[in-house]
Amino acid sequence: MSVYTPVSQAELAAWLANYSVGRLEDCEPIEAGIENTNYFVTTAQGRYVLTLFERLPAQELPFYLGLMAHLARHGIPAPAPIADLADQYLGRLNGKPAALVTRLPGRSHERPGAAECAELGALLARMHLAGRSYSAYLENPRGPKWWRLAASEVREFLDAEQRALLDAELAFHATQRFPDLPRGPVHGDLFRDNALFDEAGRISGVIDFYFAGVDCLLYDVAVCANDWCLADVADDPSLEPERMAALLGAYQAARPWTPLERAAWPVMLRAAALRFWLSRLHDFHLPRPGMLVHAHDPKHFRRILECRRAS
Amino acid sequence: MSVYTPVSQAELAAWLANYSVGRLEDCEPIEAGIENTNYFVTTAQGRYVLTLFERLPAQELPFYLGLMAHLARHGIPAPAPIADLADQYLGRLNGKPAALVTRLPGRSHERPGAAECAELGALLARMHLAGRSYSAYLENPRGPKWWRLAASEVREFLDAEQRALLDAELAFHATQRFPDLPRGPVHGDLFRDNALFDEAGRISGVIDFYFAGVDCLLYDVAVCANDWCLADVADDPSLEPERMAALLGAYQAARPWTPLERAAWPVMLRAAALRFWLSRLHDFHLPRPGMLVHAHDPKHFRRILECRRAS
Repeated sequence: MSVYTPVSQAELAAWLANYSVGRLEDCEPIEAGIENTNYFVTTAQGRYVLTLFERLPAQELPFYLGLMAHLARHGIPAPAPIADLADQYLGRLNGKPAALVTRLPGRSHERPGAAECAELGALLARMHLAGRSYSAYLENPRGPKWWRLAASEVREFLDAEQRALLDAELAFHATQRFPDLPRGPVHGDLFRDNALFDEAGRISGVIDFYFAGVDCLLYDVAVCANDWCLADVADDPSLEPERMAALLGAYQAARPWTPLERAAWPVMLRAAALRFWLSRLHDFHLPRPGMLVHAHDPKHFRRILECRRAS
Repeated sequence: MSVYTPVSQAELAAWLANYSVGRLEDCEPIEAGIENTNYFVTTAQGRYVLTLFERLPAQELPFYLGLMAHLARHGIPAPAPIADLADQYLGRLNGKPAALVTRLPGRSHERPGAAECAELGALLARMHLAGRSYSAYLENPRGPKWWRLAASEVREFLDAEQRALLDAELAFHATQRFPDLPRGPVHGDLFRDNALFDEAGRISGVIDFYFAGVDCLLYDVAVCANDWCLADVADDPSLEPERMAALLGAYQAARPWTPLERAAWPVMLRAAALRFWLSRLHDFHLPRPGMLVHAHDPKHFRRILECRRAS
């Protein structure tokens, strides 16, 4: 579970007096998530998620909260940060930066089909279009600069074959530069568990914006494809054609790709696979002190990466 | 009905391409309301209300839309304006200023009981507290300046008794000044039909902010009391004690009144009655060209006013 900082009912009730959401009715810790402490909070006014930021750099938090607010006011079902009586999104609770955001309804799909991939593609495109008027800037914190840093840290834990793969990929991507691809805020982590669907099959929530940053919009599509469109999550990392067609077709119906984007697509799939292989290697070999969850097995993204190299 | 400016499906579908709300699925005119043209709009993303502003002064619109956005991001269930791709709340459609806002769920209560009045009181207080950090300013457009203007216009239509009542009330209020009452943005028109309740009995929406302005917060409470707490809407304008206690108790649990507010309360109830008697007289005797609805009978608020004078 992921409660690093306990918050009592009494502490929370007192803190909520800074907000216009009415009195506290219920509060329960959220087990998922590894970066922050999260609680479901119910008040007289509605349902919220309380997040205590455990390790994200404080100067990045306004970018994330501002982006969520920006997208929400454009009609994207992103969690909307709630401003306090001093009109601030970011507060402090039990010594940690903290924010209250709306709790979105719905459930994630473990095994999405073509219909869900089409919903995702359409929403992702709308999110990208809406995000382009967001004026704050934060470079994707898991971009190429971070790849090189993470690679240098995990290198010593790798066997020769893994090292060769890592070095080859870093060398390959160093030759790939896409200065002219459309850029903007990207979610950066829109895996299946970060999209909630309502009972009508519509996306009712996109959550967990704490890996967002400005990058090529195409990169965000590649992150999604590498998770939502796997032929078999357990043992076939190839991309299943029907779900891929649904994802990319719906996306491009709202935001058609430029010729440069079409050309860059295979490279972007590899880049997205490399980013998650690296972070999983890092979490696996260099778990942070106090990290309470088991790290994902890095093999999953290594297989995806090898498969994307071969295609 | 209140559709002054027709909008075709094709026109609306084209206009919505400026937004991130997905493709148009349905659109139907809203019959209620007399100031604007309104449509319910359903898109791939959600449910909205489209408003074409027919006669509100253009320079006031940013105040109203900004206030709704401000309250929504503080957790108040106000309609949230949707920003377009250029990050603007206010657009233009078929020659009129136009805005898209979220459609809130729930139904209004024609005969609220003490429980609904308590919900209203609590929400109104939270709305007032949240509104105080809103920085835009618009003087209540139906305040004392407007009373005198409206009175001069309707005077010729009144009989001697009505004139005497009007003159006496204007003279009385000219002696009443409350510079030290807490002020802030007020809704100004929070009648029963502008509050929506969900099935659990909670307020799920406060709508129609187009009479909002900055005024004494207490005035907003008085507007509510004069509608929600009438002993009998049809024939007893006195205030029913149980609902009054529920409204004022819940309000003051969240924002206790100052001693000055307690002293000003009877005057404020008269002021709120006068304001609506005047606007109903005005709509009745001087209907605006093209006004498509029957005006409310001014007698209702005259009886309320006489009752408040006598208490």
